[in-house]
Amino acid sequence: MKIDPEKVTDHLVCFIWDTVTDANKDGVVLGLSGGVDSAVVALLAVGVLGPENVTLLWMPTAASADTHYTDARAVAKICRAPLIGVSLPATCIPERYHIRRGNAAARCRMIELYDCAALRNQLVIGTSNRSEIMLGYGTLHGDMACDLNPIGGLYKTQVYQLAEYLGVPKPIIDKPPSAGLWPGQTDEKELGFSYEVCDPVLQAIERGHDFDAIGPYDTVQIDTVKKINDVYRRNAFKRRGPLVAEIP
Amino acid sequence: MKIDPEKVTDHLVCFIWDTVTDANKDGVVLGLSGGVDSAVVALLAVGVLGPENVTLLWMPTAASADTHYTDARAVAKICRAPLIGVSLPATCIPERYHIRRGNAAARCRMIELYDCAALRNQLVIGTSNRSEIMLGYGTLHGDMACDLNPIGGLYKTQVYQLAEYLGVPKPIIDKPPSAGLWPGQTDEKELGFSYEVCDPVLQAIERGHDFDAIGPYDTVQIDTVKKINDVYRRNAFKRRGPLVAEIP
Repeated sequence: MKIDPEKVTDHLVCFIWDTVTDANKDGVVLGLSGGVDSAVVALLAVGVLGPENVTLLWMPTAASADTHYTDARAVAKICRAPLIGVSLPATCIPERYHIRRGNAAARCRMIELYDCAALRNQLVIGTSNRSEIMLGYGTLHGDMACDLNPIGGLYKTQVYQLAEYLGVPKPIIDKPPSAGLWPGQTDEKELGFSYEVCDPVLQAIERGHDFDAIGPYDTVQIDTVKKINDVYRRNAFKRRGPLVAEIP
Repeated sequence: MKIDPEKVTDHLVCFIWDTVTDANKDGVVLGLSGGVDSAVVALLAVGVLGPENVTLLWMPTAASADTHYTDARAVAKICRAPLIGVSLPATCIPERYHIRRGNAAARCRMIELYDCAALRNQLVIGTSNRSEIMLGYGTLHGDMACDLNPIGGLYKTQVYQLAEYLGVPKPIIDKPPSAGLWPGQTDEKELGFSYEVCDPVLQAIERGHDFDAIGPYDTVQIDTVKKINDVYRRNAFKRRGPLVAEIP
């Protein structure tokens, strides 16, 4: 799980540069949430494209805590790029439907990002990490939607290593990861396991290891391994495109 | 380009049935536009799942002509399923930005479809045909977004053959195809060629033929072949997922 942050940074900034120039675009746009993933992507993008070619959007919901706004502003300040606030349209989905409201909000953000990208001739740069993508922990056609994603190959625990190297402010690194879709939500509470626990298990699943080869069980319970594997399989549909019928 | 509509219908209803039952869902939801593609998908779905398991949404924009509503209602009547009207949120994108407004509307429809699917434990069934998918003539994360698509392997000219077989009302078959995103829009005017012309060219491109093998040039001009090929290549990004950086 250990990465060489300097080498990875060099590689990712080249990836961003090549993708943007190959597409004849003038930069990238992303949603800054106040979390560690979007902070890392913003710093990578500004480092290679310059602040004038990176658009940072702040798109809160009613559930967005003030602390996240403070953290997003701190990142924008380091980037020397303005943080543009965007109001999402009001939803008519009742408050008790957490998940439906969260998905609708994530998709409204997608609309804003793609529209902003069209207006500014930019690409939508994604901020989902490899742990989220493998678990399907994100909204299809919402926060999972993007043109390019520099951190989709990094597990969450690896994103933290990059964050420290890039100088992401400590409060952002220290707060518990949260999709911020309802008050008090944290990834760990919702998933039932931490990224420290799940990342090595996800890596073993990806490498095609048997359950028996995943461990050691003194640190990860077999129940947790099964739970992670279940989430991974159940959300497989989020990792592939639509099923299209072949014509006989 | 000729299909056996009976055989294709048998195959596609099995595809719908298998996909819905494998996912443990209670049916499908789709947007009925009044056009031929969504009419065919609705009839296929109702034929195999029954009208009680098919949700039909009518989601007009200000640009939607009354005639399309009449046509959508006619299809819903044949399906013996209610046509549920959904108001899309107002947009603040100025009217002169046709394309940005059209894309935002298509994505708002996606949000409604996915939310309706979550509420009813259904899948979002797509209505993009193979011609549209190959040309990238659709909105990414808008009308191109779905869980399953029974007609994505059929060229537009083949969808018409199926439509006649399934009894789609004649006014729907006879009117010019249109995405309906602004008044007077037709696919042919926007693309610069008809589906009759482009479908054999797309098939030749898919089969990896050289320009020289695409023809005969007495019916399709080489300029048109090049134009179709350009659109096909330019929109390649809509046919693949996001570019995700690999980690060295």
